[in-house]
Amino acid sequence: MSLLKRKSLTFDLLAIAYIEAMTRRAFDPGQCPVGRTLERVGDTWSLMILRDALQGVSRFDQFQKSLGVAPNILTQRLAALVEAGFLERRPYQERPLRHEYLVTNLARDFAPVLTALMAFGNRHYAVEGIASQMVEAATGVAAEPVVVDRRTRKPIDGPDFIYAAGPAAGPVVLERVAQVARGRQARS
Amino acid sequence: MSLLKRKSLTFDLLAIAYIEAMTRRAFDPGQCPVGRTLERVGDTWSLMILRDALQGVSRFDQFQKSLGVAPNILTQRLAALVEAGFLERRPYQERPLRHEYLVTNLARDFAPVLTALMAFGNRHYAVEGIASQMVEAATGVAAEPVVVDRRTRKPIDGPDFIYAAGPAAGPVVLERVAQVARGRQARS
Repeated sequence: MSLLKRKSLTFDLLAIAYIEAMTRRAFDPGQCPVGRTLERVGDTWSLMILRDALQGVSRFDQFQKSLGVAPNILTQRLAALVEAGFLERRPYQERPLRHEYLVTNLARDFAPVLTALMAFGNRHYAVEGIASQMVEAATGVAAEPVVVDRRTRKPIDGPDFIYAAGPAAGPVVLERVAQVARGRQARS
Repeated sequence: MSLLKRKSLTFDLLAIAYIEAMTRRAFDPGQCPVGRTLERVGDTWSLMILRDALQGVSRFDQFQKSLGVAPNILTQRLAALVEAGFLERRPYQERPLRHEYLVTNLARDFAPVLTALMAFGNRHYAVEGIASQMVEAATGVAAEPVVVDRRTRKPIDGPDFIYAAGPAAGPVVLERVAQVARGRQARS
């Protein structure tokens, strides 16, 4: 590849990255609970760091080795996860001073999202067979993760449940819920 | 703010964006089912587009209005979601030719991930009260989403379930599973 072509590719990447960076700042989740969560952890590295942290990884070099992530990105993501309350930064060595990153209760409460992602990945992308999964500790039998209602234990993504406004819904959410309901009626 | 400062801020953003773009390409999920999923939908816009699409949004201008996303980003993400099999692109108008984006079974199977994200957001970020949620259609009672094992109906992120290797696990996964097990023993 000629130097000119290389430069052009670099420039394209730079342009795409710049536009994305400028646009990323514009994301406004409004009242959407999914959006508000993704504001904090809506990128691959943050989610992979959380996966690692929940499995017991805690030190910078361990994260780096496990994920193959560049140090500058890792530093930035760890700081953001601390800021958002998912990780707690704590010194584990005095000379030289070194910190580890421990999961908080907030991060533990996020585990079901990663479990749902794992289940989806195992259903669709485990082309060579299952490499890792959650199993019942007592029996070793593989779990089949499903999202249900705690009270009724019915799957939420079936026909028994619908998307609805809550008591604090503002006009944007109310309009969206009405649109979803119209769509549901039109399809049925 | 002086022009000089503005320029410097732009340059910083550009530098960060460039480094991130270059580094992003290095992500290798290995055999991790979470990572393989995030390779396809591991960013805020893709996940928000999927949320919208699963609620019935299908046209370019509807996505744009709903998300406030820049057209170039939306075009890129829609194409990627089509490529990954989450959306199907279909003409809905001949002159001028216009396409809509419809969810596939793969996208429908992804809904539990978004439900888990919604539940997390409602638990932690609904500072003004719940704005939107899943409710039981028959009764209107709010669902409390929880990830359980389909067979035993026990919550997977409790003590009854552990992370384990599957039959196709390679050396990296086996080492990770062993590490997680050592960590579990050290803590108990």
